[in-house]
Amino acid sequence: MVDFNWPDNARCAVMLTCDFDAESLWYSEDASAHRKPSILSQGAYGPKRGIYKLLDVFRDFEIPASFYVPGSTVENHTAAIEAVLKEGHEVGHHGHMHVWIDPEDPAKEIEEMDQGLAALKRCVGVVPKGYRAPAATSSDRTIQLVHDRGFLYNSGMLDDYVPYRHKLEDGTDGPIELPFHWQLDDSALSLYIIQEQSTILTNDHIFQVWKEEFDALYEWGGLVNFTLHPQISGRPARNMLLRRIVSYMREQQDVWFATGTQIAEAFAAGMAHPAK
Amino acid sequence: MVDFNWPDNARCAVMLTCDFDAESLWYSEDASAHRKPSILSQGAYGPKRGIYKLLDVFRDFEIPASFYVPGSTVENHTAAIEAVLKEGHEVGHHGHMHVWIDPEDPAKEIEEMDQGLAALKRCVGVVPKGYRAPAATSSDRTIQLVHDRGFLYNSGMLDDYVPYRHKLEDGTDGPIELPFHWQLDDSALSLYIIQEQSTILTNDHIFQVWKEEFDALYEWGGLVNFTLHPQISGRPARNMLLRRIVSYMREQQDVWFATGTQIAEAFAAGMAHPAK
Amino acid sequence: MVDFNWPDNARCAVMLTCDFDAESLWYSEDASAHRKPSILSQGAYGPKRGIYKLLDVFRDFEIPASFYVPGSTVENHTAAIEAVLKEGHEVGHHGHMHVWIDPEDPAKEIEEMDQGLAALKRCVGVVPKGYRAPAATSSDRTIQLVHDRGFLYNSGMLDDYVPYRHKLEDGTDGPIELPFHWQLDDSALSLYIIQEQSTILTNDHIFQVWKEEFDALYEWGGLVNFTLHPQISGRPARNMLLRRIVSYMREQQDVWFATGTQIAEAFAAGMAHPAK
Amino acid sequence: MVDFNWPDNARCAVMLTCDFDAESLWYSEDASAHRKPSILSQGAYGPKRGIYKLLDVFRDFEIPASFYVPGSTVENHTAAIEAVLKEGHEVGHHGHMHVWIDPEDPAKEIEEMDQGLAALKRCVGVVPKGYRAPAATSSDRTIQLVHDRGFLYNSGMLDDYVPYRHKLEDGTDGPIELPFHWQLDDSALSLYIIQEQSTILTNDHIFQVWKEEFDALYEWGGLVNFTLHPQISGRPARNMLLRRIVSYMREQQDVWFATGTQIAEAFAAGMAHPAK
Repeated sequence: MVDFNWPDNARCAVMLTCDFDAESLWYSEDASAHRKPSILSQGAYGPKRGIYKLLDVFRDFEIPASFYVPGSTVENHTAAIEAVLKEGHEVGHHGHMHVWIDPEDPAKEIEEMDQGLAALKRCVGVVPKGYRAPAATSSDRTIQLVHDRGFLYNSGMLDDYVPYRHKLEDGTDGPIELPFHWQLDDSALSLYIIQEQSTILTNDHIFQVWKEEFDALYEWGGLVNFTLHPQISGRPARNMLLRRIVSYMREQQDVWFATGTQIAEAFAAGMAHPAK
Repeated sequence: MVDFNWPDNARCAVMLTCDFDAESLWYSEDASAHRKPSILSQGAYGPKRGIYKLLDVFRDFEIPASFYVPGSTVENHTAAIEAVLKEGHEVGHHGHMHVWIDPEDPAKEIEEMDQGLAALKRCVGVVPKGYRAPAATSSDRTIQLVHDRGFLYNSGMLDDYVPYRHKLEDGTDGPIELPFHWQLDDSALSLYIIQEQSTILTNDHIFQVWKEEFDALYEWGGLVNFTLHPQISGRPARNMLLRRIVSYMREQQDVWFATGTQIAEAFAAGMAHPAK
Repeated sequence: MVDFNWPDNARCAVMLTCDFDAESLWYSEDASAHRKPSILSQGAYGPKRGIYKLLDVFRDFEIPASFYVPGSTVENHTAAIEAVLKEGHEVGHHGHMHVWIDPEDPAKEIEEMDQGLAALKRCVGVVPKGYRAPAATSSDRTIQLVHDRGFLYNSGMLDDYVPYRHKLEDGTDGPIELPFHWQLDDSALSLYIIQEQSTILTNDHIFQVWKEEFDALYEWGGLVNFTLHPQISGRPARNMLLRRIVSYMREQQDVWFATGTQIAEAFAAGMAHPAK
Repeated sequence: MVDFNWPDNARCAVMLTCDFDAESLWYSEDASAHRKPSILSQGAYGPKRGIYKLLDVFRDFEIPASFYVPGSTVENHTAAIEAVLKEGHEVGHHGHMHVWIDPEDPAKEIEEMDQGLAALKRCVGVVPKGYRAPAATSSDRTIQLVHDRGFLYNSGMLDDYVPYRHKLEDGTDGPIELPFHWQLDDSALSLYIIQEQSTILTNDHIFQVWKEEFDALYEWGGLVNFTLHPQISGRPARNMLLRRIVSYMREQQDVWFATGTQIAEAFAAGMAHPAK
């Protein structure tokens, strides 16, 4: 028995999202990275090769995806974002320099938010409806700020497996939340950071982790919120993995593949709601 | 040949315990977590969703469980603890704010102990018989304190695989110990902490680890002391895993499923004792 | 084609060693551990339960083993070492308080060496022939010191897969080396340290790692030098694993199971030597 | 459909490279390692045993390999490098003391470069055509320096899966890049560092990771750039793994096994180039 009703009696919703950090991911890890081209080259793979490999997959399976794009990425790799838009995918907000939100530095949080908005508008004419913070960071002001900037939805909390609506401090309605979990994040399973001696897993292992999570959410009627990165799932072996898990999900019946905006709009319209 | 005799000639005892840390687990990891709602949301999943998924499992298999609950959890999520009690499970003590015990700060240890006791009494009327310290921490005063506060048993040592009775410094009897090991702890196998690049394992892997430990303890006649967390084993894939391992254990013959209190009382009554 | 000739035309030699650190392993990890009984209880499992489970395995398979014992272990758990000796196993030296050797502190290195020697002599009358440093640490004085104290062999280097003889700084012969590698160390594969979020592996995984190393050394004619710990391989699941790998090696033809002293003596006598 | 054209219509190119760090790898990890012979012995395995085991594999499969050798290795282990050269393999540059490049210390970067060049020339008469920085480190001056010293190619970037040519700051052509990725690096999968509690993987696991990457690059027509270390892939089990993956690749059709120099020269000559 499902916990949540989805449009057209779907059993569950699948949301394929891509955090398009490019080089900015590495600034967050190492402040001196801008002078280390080999470190940056890990992120540069994204706009150079990875993004097009991801677009190939989504096109082959005819699935609309949601790309959360830092302002620095759209400024430095505008053509890549234009390619994303040209194929009809959603473009959302993902900070400007991928700076992790720090509750002690509210000015920086606002700066990142507003620079990112400005860059998306200026470079590709996008006013984003969805916001995802870098590395799932947040402050006690984030949800209010997301609301104030007019976003329809946020995707950065881990306290549910179905969408819900945030309440603001004054008790009024805030943005819709599309929660995620690390278990469906390719960086948690496959980002290699040399200083941390990450364990490199097989595709079989990661496929199994993802299949188990999908199968459980399919049974519970939940939101399957994948977080991908062009610099990870656009690499050779991992791109094959992405095809494999998407193919598996495609074969199941009554799965709704949608962008974040489509899901949030269905929720806002009362077409996606708790079963009881 | 077994090392230990259990009631009704059981081959071994299985104790399903849940450390219901909720948000407090994350305060222990990051002192600024109270201003980071996305960090806290990992713990908030427990009282919001996870606990009910665990209760579903225990109800379906008709197994009584033991919940060790910090005072802050019972204060902030009283309804969840009431649901636990309503289904007949045991509620024990697990600190107040999940502060790790520090031998250099005895006042804090006592404060955590007494605030936790007061909260359990005030919010749900429980006087707990079992104590488990946060993250298996301890000081050289802990066992005496557990004794002084009148607990029947402690569950936080790793020096045995069957129950035993602590000796106090003056040579007299202290509380009964129900020892555990990380191998049967879902946080050791499945808690994802982004800063530590934890390896995300498959259900097959974790099932196998748990099955191997159960099988060995079944052969030795030991205590199978599982430590679960609503925010971990209440998540989609891991909840399926819990069903799978409980189902496996249920299929074995002569397994005694009991709460910590039931086991400690059997030990105290001489109905659970070393074989020789 | 093998690289090394072993007595009786054996294909390879297997040396089962146990570092009997007990509580002292945890002092090395955390200087305040002496006031944290739950931390220490991980090590206390060794002399209380683990050692007897290891002895059961060696007895069942009729294999002589080598136990490297810190002075503090023999002082605090004399009965356990007596049990080891009673079954005919070798007892060697493993420091006194398991202090990691620091090249900057030569006085401490000598103190650990001499206190350990004194404790072994005083408590169980043993003058050890083999030395293994805690955690494979060393200084530029260690080999000379091992020589000066009259040891037949050292087991702490990783630069070969067959025995060899150390040269001292003055060019004369030093002790024989029985090299090891982490791949055959149960602590590298199965010691859980909560602060480090170690990955808990399955028995199948560890068995496979060990089988692969054994198979390769069997083909090359090398020394299979297992490092076990009572607090690890004496635990339930891991003890089954130990039985499984020993059983596998037992089934192979022409494997020489021997203690460190037996191997070093064969080397000294010219009965174990490079093939060319 | 392939992205890149290789000589003789090969589907992909395979480049087996060895970073011959020997003891110098451990100086990078621990500045006091020169006084810790057991730490150094991990690296000493390379020139003593590992290198000959690697040469055995390359000889058996008749594959030319590329060895990137720090100046300190060729000074301290000249015979090992002579053995490499005698079998017709390429010898390239890998720093002098394996010092990680630091953008804040340009003098050190130049010193490491020039000392390494001098040592290769003096000890074995080699003027290297390829450069690989220690641990894939770099500064914003590295590519210019590699160009100024007359190298044909660099192998240290991760932003592509096929060769490309660097552009210098003045817009002119720089060295050819032969990019790599950690997924094909034996140190990322199998270097054990005790302080970091690395997870020890099975050969099956690592074989699968490597096979998946090879298969994907075979399909895409990419460069399969393996990074091996004599102290890792020259050890017993891992040497069997190397034979297994090389054997697998050998069985595939139309695979071009070549040294870095051969691949870079084909690129320079226009015989290896993007398909469109």
